[in-house]
Amino acid sequence: MSEPAGVIAELLAELVKLPGIGPKSAERIAHFLLAGDRASAVALADALHAVASKVRPCRTCFNLTDGELCPICADPKRDAALLCVVETPRDVNSFERVGSFRGLYHVLGGRLAPLDGMGPERLTFAALAERVRTGGVREVILATSPTLEGDGTALFASNVLAPTGVAVTRLARGLPSGSSLELANAQMLADALEGRRTF
Amino acid sequence: MSEPAGVIAELLAELVKLPGIGPKSAERIAHFLLAGDRASAVALADALHAVASKVRPCRTCFNLTDGELCPICADPKRDAALLCVVETPRDVNSFERVGSFRGLYHVLGGRLAPLDGMGPERLTFAALAERVRTGGVREVILATSPTLEGDGTALFASNVLAPTGVAVTRLARGLPSGSSLELANAQMLADALEGRRTF
Repeated sequence: MSEPAGVIAELLAELVKLPGIGPKSAERIAHFLLAGDRASAVALADALHAVASKVRPCRTCFNLTDGELCPICADPKRDAALLCVVETPRDVNSFERVGSFRGLYHVLGGRLAPLDGMGPERLTFAALAERVRTGGVREVILATSPTLEGDGTALFASNVLAPTGVAVTRLARGLPSGSSLELANAQMLADALEGRRTF
Repeated sequence: MSEPAGVIAELLAELVKLPGIGPKSAERIAHFLLAGDRASAVALADALHAVASKVRPCRTCFNLTDGELCPICADPKRDAALLCVVETPRDVNSFERVGSFRGLYHVLGGRLAPLDGMGPERLTFAALAERVRTGGVREVILATSPTLEGDGTALFASNVLAPTGVAVTRLARGLPSGSSLELANAQMLADALEGRRTF
């Protein structure tokens, strides 16, 4: 069989590297972009070039932005005394979609995974401690993943913050809203029992 | 809630236009491209620019290529006396993956759909007739979709080719290999009965 021609093959090779895109989806996307006047291919290419050259970490919270400060840190209506510590910029988006959190964020840039070479020096713990030390922070919410590595990362952060005396909290654990009790595993049930609240 | 910053929002807007990419996938892809050294974003942008500027229809068969002729038409080992008429370049890829067809293709560029303004003048029927008229073609296989519009397109092509006297065939209809008889609908069963072969 003959392979697709040069530049199309290169586009397919780049597309299949993307998360969730297999060979079939890549072909579908490539032929969608090749149909018509090519304007959508150029627009996507320009958008990619723009993010590649302009997007950088926010000076304060390490969220991704194309300015000096991300829109959240730049918003004077947000509560600067409340910090939510998350692993990635995607987590910021997740919380922003909920819309109920009015504080600021601190993006660690990942979670501790010593076996994968992800040590504390590669995350923004030092900047977090510095932010809290310079004052005005009332509470730090550790919003890392509810996993072994996420818990380890939260523990490390709480140790880093201990000398500052700031209040440190973590997200509630329990049953995932909207699911069924029979789908809950032992750890979820244990968390739900331990964290039970007055009805 | 605060929206993602400018250039990221533009990238997300371009990504969700792609087939099969929803807001969640777009966000996942965007953050994948924003992680690390941005090389993958630039490589994808360059690949898009390359296809947008270089890819064009093959002079002979209208398959997509970045040369004058597509690799299939340029291959002297292919049987130029056997033409497979398909709707789109994706269909060429599908047949090439099977690997058993050793003839050449002719890409119509779609199927007749008069209600959507897709008339015969927008497809490559004239070039197909010209290819057959200039000689050397023994058989034309009409490989349009097994749908109402695909059948209409095949019928139109066979009428266009009738004056040339070339042998015109169409793909077999029957039960889809690997599926179960109880999943077959009435039309599949009717096709399978009509096209039955000696055991």
